[in-house]
Amino acid sequence: MASHNLARSCRKVVCIGRNYADHIKELNNVRPKKPFFFLKPSSSILTPDQGPVLRPKGTNLHYEVELALIMGHNLVDHPEADAQGAIDSIAGYAIAIDMTARNMQEEAKKKGIPWTAAKGFDTFLPISHYIPKSDIPDPHDVELWLTVNGEERQRDSTALMLFRIPRILSEISRVMKLEEGDIVLTGTPKGVGPVQVGDVMRAGVRVGQKELKEGDIEVG
Amino acid sequence: MASHNLARSCRKVVCIGRNYADHIKELNNVRPKKPFFFLKPSSSILTPDQGPVLRPKGTNLHYEVELALIMGHNLVDHPEADAQGAIDSIAGYAIAIDMTARNMQEEAKKKGIPWTAAKGFDTFLPISHYIPKSDIPDPHDVELWLTVNGEERQRDSTALMLFRIPRILSEISRVMKLEEGDIVLTGTPKGVGPVQVGDVMRAGVRVGQKELKEGDIEVG
Ligand SMILES: [Mg+2]
Ligand SMILES: [Mg+2]
Ligand SMILES: [Mg+2]
Repeated sequence: MASHNLARSCRKVVCIGRNYADHIKELNNVRPKKPFFFLKPSSSILTPDQGPVLRPKGTNLHYEVELALIMGHNLVDHPEADAQGAIDSIAGYAIAIDMTARNMQEEAKKKGIPWTAAKGFDTFLPISHYIPKSDIPDPHDVELWLTVNGEERQRDSTALMLFRIPRILSEISRVMKLEEGDIVLTGTPKGVGPVQVGDVMRAGVRVGQKELKEGDIEVG
Repeated sequence: MASHNLARSCRKVVCIGRNYADHIKELNNVRPKKPFFFLKPSSSILTPDQGPVLRPKGTNLHYEVELALIMGHNLVDHPEADAQGAIDSIAGYAIAIDMTARNMQEEAKKKGIPWTAAKGFDTFLPISHYIPKSDIPDPHDVELWLTVNGEERQRDSTALMLFRIPRILSEISRVMKLEEGDIVLTGTPKGVGPVQVGDVMRAGVRVGQKELKEGDIEVG
């Protein structure tokens, strides 16, 4: 599946917040007792051929590399104990950058209002091509990485997730049904930071000793 | 258009918070200097034939009747001054109830985390049939109402909106493009309150002296 098809078939993008301990520390956030999540609009998806990420005026724009799950069938009220069922509901994967207007998000947090605008600008979700499920035998054992202008900023294993995928999918599906084509972002490891106009981000995923070509993102 | 088609063609539901002064007071909220918004997932839409609203355990479930705009064409970076262009982008209307787990929302506000779960459970967006645009000559001059078990709880004119529709659509479209079939909720007037299992909500809209049949909602 090309990623413009990903974009077309996606109705919602559900994103887990604070799922890596060292990332929680770097933003001085509180570690959640259970997973919490927010929505990015499908209109924020930026496929590989669509050009650069917008830099809205007055925003402090941060990258967050994440492993994305592409849902293969509906999931409703899924019990956490059925880990295999959760994994079976995934059709495939992608790498995504959860672009965030950090200053707007901090202001929203202080005011107790939604993060929607801070997370939802057009182009705020660069996504790679579709990664076939068979290319990632264990989604809790891949390495995510991101560079800015060739300098490494993020590189960590998905083994560090605080809440693993069956728990994440269970918690979401007990609130809102997950539908075929929906995208779930699983959280970002440490190393998030700002990008300026002209900076080039690259991101990807390594499985064992191998870089997965389909997971590559290069975006201005 | 039947409302199951509304549900199918909708990719995002964008909701304005705190858009009626008396509703802001009743929840002891701060009046916003500019419109803010959040997303409900399209999976929360409940069409007239789909049965009752879920009462998730441990939630204090509140109703909020709202005028919904059904987008007719894409809107990107729309200038507020072009009020006619904003109105022209609307294909039609519906009445909707923005169901809210108020206790979860209050906790999210305190913690500075997203409102997504509090607003996003399956069935949390009962919606009426489609109201043809010509049936509402002026969307700032209709009366919204809601009853619980036959007792009136909300009845106010959309003339009381703090931010009117052209401003709302401008603010949203400067963050995220609005697409054909997207739904925009314009905020709720005063009178929100809890519903228990077994309560029946009715809601609708009056234009001049006339109730619009297509705007009727009756839901358990
Ligand atoms: Mg993130
Ligand atoms: Mg959505
Ligand atoms: Mg509302």
